[in-house]
Amino acid sequence: MDDLSLLSASKTPVPHSPEEAQLETFENSHPDREYTITFDCPEFTSLCPITGQPDFGKITIDYIADKKCIESKSLKIYLFSYRNHGAFHEEVTNLILDDLVKACSPKWARVTGNFLPRGGIAIHVVAEHGKR
Amino acid sequence: MDDLSLLSASKTPVPHSPEEAQLETFENSHPDREYTITFDCPEFTSLCPITGQPDFGKITIDYIADKKCIESKSLKIYLFSYRNHGAFHEEVTNLILDDLVKACSPKWARVTGNFLPRGGIAIHVVAEHGKR
Amino acid sequence: MDDLSLLSASKTPVPHSPEEAQLETFENSHPDREYTITFDCPEFTSLCPITGQPDFGKITIDYIADKKCIESKSLKIYLFSYRNHGAFHEEVTNLILDDLVKACSPKWARVTGNFLPRGGIAIHVVAEHGKR
Amino acid sequence: MDDLSLLSASKTPVPHSPEEAQLETFENSHPDREYTITFDCPEFTSLCPITGQPDFGKITIDYIADKKCIESKSLKIYLFSYRNHGAFHEEVTNLILDDLVKACSPKWARVTGNFLPRGGIAIHVVAEHGKR
Amino acid sequence: MDDLSLLSASKTPVPHSPEEAQLETFENSHPDREYTITFDCPEFTSLCPITGQPDFGKITIDYIADKKCIESKSLKIYLFSYRNHGAFHEEVTNLILDDLVKACSPKWARVTGNFLPRGGIAIHVVAEHGKR
Amino acid sequence: MDDLSLLSASKTPVPHSPEEAQLETFENSHPDREYTITFDCPEFTSLCPITGQPDFGKITIDYIADKKCIESKSLKIYLFSYRNHGAFHEEVTNLILDDLVKACSPKWARVTGNFLPRGGIAIHVVAEHGKR
Amino acid sequence: MDDLSLLSASKTPVPHSPEEAQLETFENSHPDREYTITFDCPEFTSLCPITGQPDFGKITIDYIADKKCIESKSLKIYLFSYRNHGAFHEEVTNLILDDLVKACSPKWARVTGNFLPRGGIAIHVVAEHGKR
Amino acid sequence: MDDLSLLSASKTPVPHSPEEAQLETFENSHPDREYTITFDCPEFTSLCPITGQPDFGKITIDYIADKKCIESKSLKIYLFSYRNHGAFHEEVTNLILDDLVKACSPKWARVTGNFLPRGGIAIHVVAEHGKR
Amino acid sequence: MDDLSLLSASKTPVPHSPEEAQLETFENSHPDREYTITFDCPEFTSLCPITGQPDFGKITIDYIADKKCIESKSLKIYLFSYRNHGAFHEEVTNLILDDLVKACSPKWARVTGNFLPRGGIAIHVVAEHGKR
Amino acid sequence: MDDLSLLSASKTPVPHSPEEAQLETFENSHPDREYTITFDCPEFTSLCPITGQPDFGKITIDYIADKKCIESKSLKIYLFSYRNHGAFHEEVTNLILDDLVKACSPKWARVTGNFLPRGGIAIHVVAEHGKR
Repeated sequence: MDDLSLLSASKTPVPHSPEEAQLETFENSHPDREYTITFDCPEFTSLCPITGQPDFGKITIDYIADKKCIESKSLKIYLFSYRNHGAFHEEVTNLILDDLVKACSPKWARVTGNFLPRGGIAIHVVAEHGKR
Repeated sequence: MDDLSLLSASKTPVPHSPEEAQLETFENSHPDREYTITFDCPEFTSLCPITGQPDFGKITIDYIADKKCIESKSLKIYLFSYRNHGAFHEEVTNLILDDLVKACSPKWARVTGNFLPRGGIAIHVVAEHGKR
Repeated sequence: MDDLSLLSASKTPVPHSPEEAQLETFENSHPDREYTITFDCPEFTSLCPITGQPDFGKITIDYIADKKCIESKSLKIYLFSYRNHGAFHEEVTNLILDDLVKACSPKWARVTGNFLPRGGIAIHVVAEHGKR
Repeated sequence: MDDLSLLSASKTPVPHSPEEAQLETFENSHPDREYTITFDCPEFTSLCPITGQPDFGKITIDYIADKKCIESKSLKIYLFSYRNHGAFHEEVTNLILDDLVKACSPKWARVTGNFLPRGGIAIHVVAEHGKR
Repeated sequence: MDDLSLLSASKTPVPHSPEEAQLETFENSHPDREYTITFDCPEFTSLCPITGQPDFGKITIDYIADKKCIESKSLKIYLFSYRNHGAFHEEVTNLILDDLVKACSPKWARVTGNFLPRGGIAIHVVAEHGKR
Repeated sequence: MDDLSLLSASKTPVPHSPEEAQLETFENSHPDREYTITFDCPEFTSLCPITGQPDFGKITIDYIADKKCIESKSLKIYLFSYRNHGAFHEEVTNLILDDLVKACSPKWARVTGNFLPRGGIAIHVVAEHGKR
Repeated sequence: MDDLSLLSASKTPVPHSPEEAQLETFENSHPDREYTITFDCPEFTSLCPITGQPDFGKITIDYIADKKCIESKSLKIYLFSYRNHGAFHEEVTNLILDDLVKACSPKWARVTGNFLPRGGIAIHVVAEHGKR
Repeated sequence: MDDLSLLSASKTPVPHSPEEAQLETFENSHPDREYTITFDCPEFTSLCPITGQPDFGKITIDYIADKKCIESKSLKIYLFSYRNHGAFHEEVTNLILDDLVKACSPKWARVTGNFLPRGGIAIHVVAEHGKR
Repeated sequence: MDDLSLLSASKTPVPHSPEEAQLETFENSHPDREYTITFDCPEFTSLCPITGQPDFGKITIDYIADKKCIESKSLKIYLFSYRNHGAFHEEVTNLILDDLVKACSPKWARVTGNFLPRGGIAIHVVAEHGKR
Repeated sequence: MDDLSLLSASKTPVPHSPEEAQLETFENSHPDREYTITFDCPEFTSLCPITGQPDFGKITIDYIADKKCIESKSLKIYLFSYRNHGAFHEEVTNLILDDLVKACSPKWARVTGNFLPRGGIAIHVVAEHGKR
């Protein structure tokens, strides 16, 4: 059950793909200090582009903001947009990094995808943008 | 990536709701012995019926088979059918138990749903059929 | 940051004490099956009635519903009502159980309070209503 | 229950915001040695500035003192001052660092905020002052 | 550093032995409900009666109160009274149980002592009063 | 109970303060190799200099010996000497490091004090002598 | 590398199936005492009878011997015999129990198979013989 | 039980040795970004070349792809080819690295083999190709 | 290094077998209360009677004393007597229980032996005397 | 029980001291690649040279081989030779490193000894040869 009131809540429109989703930002209150923000997102699922079967994983985002910070509710909906979208693990991780960089031009960013095993093998992907 | 060959695999048809999905069974090779079978399913997701937002959880099924055992691949697809289906945590857990009982008439069965927190509160539901 | 949209959200009115808060319920869909519902609430704080200093703890609620189930968002706000309220650990745990029983008349209920240490001693309280 | 005697204790005056609270210091007994002091504070709560709902987290402070050390009881009351104060996770962490630096001019300091998940996403912020 | 204010605090008089210490009680607010209270006390030390060397352990107290509850600050000082007192592990655990029973006449009580290893062997003692 | 025979053991004389205690050494058998020795001491207690109440912690000592190594039984008795001695966490850690350096002139040494929480805040201190 | 000397070791003849393998026994030295023996076998692999792909799991055997105990080296070779043998998880666990009972007629026995996940679902099977 | 349908699945041809197996690749979608891909393979078994007895271990592969990525299903079958093949732990780990390098010419690669104990000693081997 | 003073310590005479060792006892101070004493002994080694190779394990002893308690230093030396003694895991565990019962006639006793793996299989034995 | 057949096994001759034991080697198959080999040896025991009492620990060996690798069975027997040999923790660790270097002239080696506590203090020693 969600945080929204049962009476007043209207359904959040669900984006059909990452292209449709929008990562929103807010102004960084401390742009002069290089501090790290981490989003720990254990609720991620996408579809295997070959079989259409669901894949599950945990996405971790670390970044050093420049002028803009990522707003966490829009991040939740952005990640939700992969739910009915086919994508390989290696591509998903890089695509999230590309979209994050496009949205907020961080000084540094890293996306880690830890995917649950298929055929006895789990895949983990770590992609970085810029230098820490 | 799935276990199926990249070349020969055709997409598995995805059921749109639990009603459409089919729990398949095979004959119990040891019907005279009361032994316990457990399915540990950490990859479960459904939708909140109020907000349309995704919920995530882990489903654990323990049962003592009578004449029929649940086939695990059909179970995977059955659980997959909740992916775009709205249901409350309490109902999801009871519904899976109802469908399991209907499919294989077990001597005993228990379904446990451990759902991830919303608003700082995690919900766990444990429903049982018959006596162990 | 909360799940509510930054633009449209209005502040939830905060109850000043447990007496003002309201535990809401919904109809139990499976009243004939004795199944267990657990709420795991790691975000609890109250005030020491002697010193006015904050206490922190984790509240766990297990119950078997009869006709009515506890609605989880109202539970969140109910627990929030202890935030500026003075109460001893032993009383808090029993009071939550009393209010739960009053709200939904469960077949069985148990409230566990695990409070963080003061003076090197942590207190845990487990109170039960009815027989399982 | 607090460490203070039930009979003699008077209520500690609670600051209404971080601005009102005071981080007290004592003289560093070993100013020539660059040693690290860590405060591990698992009992932190503030309010979401948008919804008024409580947020919970753990604050960790590491620093190398220069002439002055932070007195731990005043730190406890300082952190307590966020209890009824609205602030975003990113700002809270940076603000604690600013106030720490103002209070004791450390050679180096780092504040880490590990906040509990909202909407399935947990946020962690790490802000540093000076070079170790 | 203790919770007491640096300026106003006077030293708590330290009892020289368990006989001198006093377990204080307060009235049980829910005497009709059989609920369990646990004190988790990881800070315990006594002396070996043979060698005078310190022993360390963790004391856990579980009890069901009748008319009176144990006040936790007096418990802290009571346990502190073993600090310069010689006693064997088996006796310490039983003695704490005897004193607890004398102080509050509980419906049921259990004291567990988990002592750190000497000569490669750790000793744990569990003593119970009454039936749960 | 200690390792010493119940019959023949005489009580070890207990030093009343760190100044009275003596860290003994033995010759380093491998002075040409820079190897690290660690003492892991989970049994440490001292008194709060303000309130007289006991504090508990774990002391970890890492060092690279030069000509002399610390004898572990004398270290045990040295740490025992803090038992009835008032000292702040920051000072205790630095004082142990000072005494270690005085006793064996190591090439490098580090003392870590991990103290149990007071008022919900745990303090950890790490002090180092020389460069590794 | 095995425990056997590199020079003198001859290859152990590998049974091609469980039928060919032999569980050897030795006389129980304490047949009058009902004590439990557990074999913890994390090194188990068999083949999927449908696809020929390897499955991996952990087999745990608990039993109360009557006149005969299972010799552990023959158990190792017996479990090794499943390596190139096709069998479902439910059958493997029951078959091991059948063979154990046949070999040593225990007063009680239980076999637990914990198999690694396929398609995101792990299967655990617990089969028991006799009453404890 | 495997992911393949019970009806349509044909047995995957099993390679008899690593030489017969084929590591397949696909084009790297982000060749300009140096990101890390990890395969976590807990299901590995080979034979001891001296005794013919099975060895078990966990293989972890980390690499930075250049133009080609390793396809995970072919990796599963490649690792499966060691099942009836005799090889020492040190050689197995280096051989997997050699074959990985040959198959996809990565910018950097590391293979870690964590093998279960024999004679009370577990062996771990870490081999690296190129510089990270 | 042992607890004994380097100067005054004479070597403890080491028993060559369990028969030579002596479990000493002291009077139970609370014979009317049925309380449990546990000895946790992670330092146990014996020899394999077939190969002469060392075996390692952890022995746990739980008992309810009648008139006499086991003295822990004599237990340490008793367990030490297995060091150069050949014995199977099943026998070792039962033999320790027999000797414990002979030494102190407890109301109830249980000995658990958890032995480290040989050939990939770990053996655990639990033997009990009397009823709890 | 050992891996050797009960019938054919002859007792392995046990060396009485490390000087008598022999670390055997085999040719490194990949001398041009600087890869790391780790031996994890949780089964180590020696005697205290002062009291004759047993000490227990875990030895970890990491090395980069040059032309020769250490054969693991001879390592097991070499470590076994400390069983009835008196040696201090600091010396044991350095001696094993000396013998390893003498036996296989590695490019780099490190020996770590983690010994169980005596008198409440555990000692860990880490000695290194060459530069990694």
